[in-house]
Amino acid sequence: MEIMRVKDELVCTRRVPGLQTASLRVLENQSGGLMVASDPVGVPIGKWVFTASGSAARWAMPDSTVTTDLTICGIIDNWDA
Amino acid sequence: MEIMRVKDELVCTRRVPGLQTASLRVLENQSGGLMVASDPVGVPIGKWVFTASGSAARWAMPDSTVTTDLTICGIIDNWDA
Amino acid sequence: MEIMRVKDELVCTRRVPGLQTASLRVLENQSGGLMVASDPVGVPIGKWVFTASGSAARWAMPDSTVTTDLTICGIIDNWDA
Amino acid sequence: MEIMRVKDELVCTRRVPGLQTASLRVLENQSGGLMVASDPVGVPIGKWVFTASGSAARWAMPDSTVTTDLTICGIIDNWDA
Amino acid sequence: MEIMRVKDELVCTRRVPGLQTASLRVLENQSGGLMVASDPVGVPIGKWVFTASGSAARWAMPDSTVTTDLTICGIIDNWDA
Repeated sequence: MEIMRVKDELVCTRRVPGLQTASLRVLENQSGGLMVASDPVGVPIGKWVFTASGSAARWAMPDSTVTTDLTICGIIDNWDA
Repeated sequence: MEIMRVKDELVCTRRVPGLQTASLRVLENQSGGLMVASDPVGVPIGKWVFTASGSAARWAMPDSTVTTDLTICGIIDNWDA
Repeated sequence: MEIMRVKDELVCTRRVPGLQTASLRVLENQSGGLMVASDPVGVPIGKWVFTASGSAARWAMPDSTVTTDLTICGIIDNWDA
Repeated sequence: MEIMRVKDELVCTRRVPGLQTASLRVLENQSGGLMVASDPVGVPIGKWVFTASGSAARWAMPDSTVTTDLTICGIIDNWDA
Repeated sequence: MEIMRVKDELVCTRRVPGLQTASLRVLENQSGGLMVASDPVGVPIGKWVFTASGSAARWAMPDSTVTTDLTICGIIDNWDA
């Protein structure tokens, strides 16, 4: 699982039906790259989180049929970047 | 999911039968590398999109038997690179 | 499988239910990046370990329904970085 | 899917039974790294191709039990590197 | 599949049960990074090999329940690095 920071919500008017009503967040990884993740936790912007990728990203969702490949799995307490 | 920009259509006369009639797009990722993705959304060239990889790429297609490993999942509104 | 070093325990008050009661560790990979892994072995901080990723990470857990994508598979003896 | 160029055939006298009689090619990716891919298309050396990885690589083969993780999915026409 | 060189055997006194009795090797990839792979072929140190990752790594083993994510698939003849 990777350590990333929540930067923003993702705003998109068109998306595939398989994402259903999942909340999407823009995350920044440790190299400064931006990723999009589904968020079943409800994380405020600015928090450090860890994420699961691949098929684990689907199993980490309340509904495992959501077609995501990156999901926020938890908020890290007191993370010092 | 990754954030990429649509650069072009992919023109190929020979491809494996498993790709069926899927539309293929050439995308540029954040490092400037070029990727090929299946496009169930119908995205115009120049738009910013986010993509799912791995098995999620197949589940994001209307027909999940298409042998893709990267699928456009949505268009990002007002993205400022 | 990758070779990493155990840096710390992961402290998080909120995490997805799919992680169940798995112990989580912060690992440092060979490029200096930090990762989070589930630890079925019980590894002390400072040890060198090797890890499985993807679906293998789940099969390496005693309970393969834990939604991890990185699991410590063993402690490497006498590793000289 | 990634864009690569066919460099050579792969010559190996010993390989695992799971690869069956699949043709193997040495490809060069956009960073100059060399990869090995199964080739169900029959691509001449020097051509630009796109490849599927992960489980999609198996589904792209005529026989999806071949233990590959990278398969050539098609030849790109008129690619200008 | 990736091209790597066998550097050493892996010595570890504790490992997860899912690895069963698989032989483990330390490999060096093209960037100089070190990886751990299961070896169903029996490759001498110093040889160049190609490896399968992900779920293909399990299917390349004689027993596909071994919890590996990287398996040596064959020895490359006359490889000139």
